[in-house]
Amino acid sequence: MQLQVISKKHATVTLLAHVDTDRSAAVFTKIGLVMSRGERMDYAIQKSTELGVTAIQLLSSHHGEVNLKPAQVEKKLAHWQQVAIAACEQCGLNRPPLIIAPVSINDWLQQSVTHSADSQIDVRPPTTSTIVTTLSQDPYYQILQQPADLRLQLSVPAAGQPAMPKSLSAVLTQQSPYIELLIGPEGGLSVDECQQAAKAGFEPWQIGSRVLRTETAPVVALATLHALSYYE
Amino acid sequence: MQLQVISKKHATVTLLAHVDTDRSAAVFTKIGLVMSRGERMDYAIQKSTELGVTAIQLLSSHHGEVNLKPAQVEKKLAHWQQVAIAACEQCGLNRPPLIIAPVSINDWLQQSVTHSADSQIDVRPPTTSTIVTTLSQDPYYQILQQPADLRLQLSVPAAGQPAMPKSLSAVLTQQSPYIELLIGPEGGLSVDECQQAAKAGFEPWQIGSRVLRTETAPVVALATLHALSYYE
Repeated sequence: MQLQVISKKHATVTLLAHVDTDRSAAVFTKIGLVMSRGERMDYAIQKSTELGVTAIQLLSSHHGEVNLKPAQVEKKLAHWQQVAIAACEQCGLNRPPLIIAPVSINDWLQQSVTHSADSQIDVRPPTTSTIVTTLSQDPYYQILQQPADLRLQLSVPAAGQPAMPKSLSAVLTQQSPYIELLIGPEGGLSVDECQQAAKAGFEPWQIGSRVLRTETAPVVALATLHALSYYE
Repeated sequence: MQLQVISKKHATVTLLAHVDTDRSAAVFTKIGLVMSRGERMDYAIQKSTELGVTAIQLLSSHHGEVNLKPAQVEKKLAHWQQVAIAACEQCGLNRPPLIIAPVSINDWLQQSVTHSADSQIDVRPPTTSTIVTTLSQDPYYQILQQPADLRLQLSVPAAGQPAMPKSLSAVLTQQSPYIELLIGPEGGLSVDECQQAAKAGFEPWQIGSRVLRTETAPVVALATLHALSYYE
């Protein structure tokens, strides 16, 4: 880039070269993330972006801390999308994740079940930010319209659960694997929500033997997926 | 646990059973972490604890943001150790990480080189919190007195660097592997510090293609080590 003219308010530059570096992740991921309060939510979005998440579907749940009023949605959505964009600028990710307007977890899981019948519904909730509308036209994000190759629900350590769903290894060796992750609130999902998730094909995934906070879980899940995918 | 007597100020309980659950990580890790400001440092310590770090050696560096005055060290150390203990209570980790009083990165790397000759120096810097003094007597933490099986320096993505040091896989298949990680400040290590690190046997490790913030790096590094160790 070469600076041509600079004045108090304007600058003209000539682009000398286009460096086509793609820093997006090899594994496509959508996180269904139950909203938490304040900084922890910003943190979860910032770190998930650093870890190359493709989209975040905001969710409200029975035990969740946050239920946005319709009037708040637009402002909050713009804020969280901006957090993601700022994180992109910091980490060099060239494909900002889509931050998708909140729906209740039950509605989302219901959509998941009927996904193939009406795939548009998944990325077009009632309120959609301009950037999501624009970006979702881009071929890169089209994979989000398809059913995921694997659905994993992060669960707290418990005896008798499988450490890792058996199908994960196989999915990660595919070309462009697409994985959906469901991450509940600090208080966990309700029994009904867990049943709904299982019905929608979400398999429990227990990472390690310690209880991860709701804002730590996405970072660790994404880092683990990338580690398994990259080093396999 | 059974409640026997309860009054306004006291309660007497009988312990009915001792559940001997060890939630400490299979990989022993010490992070040499250049101190960052305020919340980001608390965050790095909290998340590293959730990910089961064994010890954190606080470091000051040329490009670092924080250089504690001697009078501040004791208070800061107590604060960070408390952050780690609170994180243990949250995540169920039963072995709190040792938060070791800051030294300059050059001094630490110098100690690393002469490690075998004077191994005590490494866990007994001039100021030591009571909990570190007490815990470091525990057999569990004795491994920190030994030279690490592998030293990795987290580095920003650059062309031509190996994605993962070749020896990592082999080290992770050992019984109780012990890995030291060096994590620099937002501004990176100075040329001299990088040379010192290389001299002390730290191999560059580039995780993924995006630039991780200094507070994200420890979480991602630990999650990656655990993923590789656990699922291999």
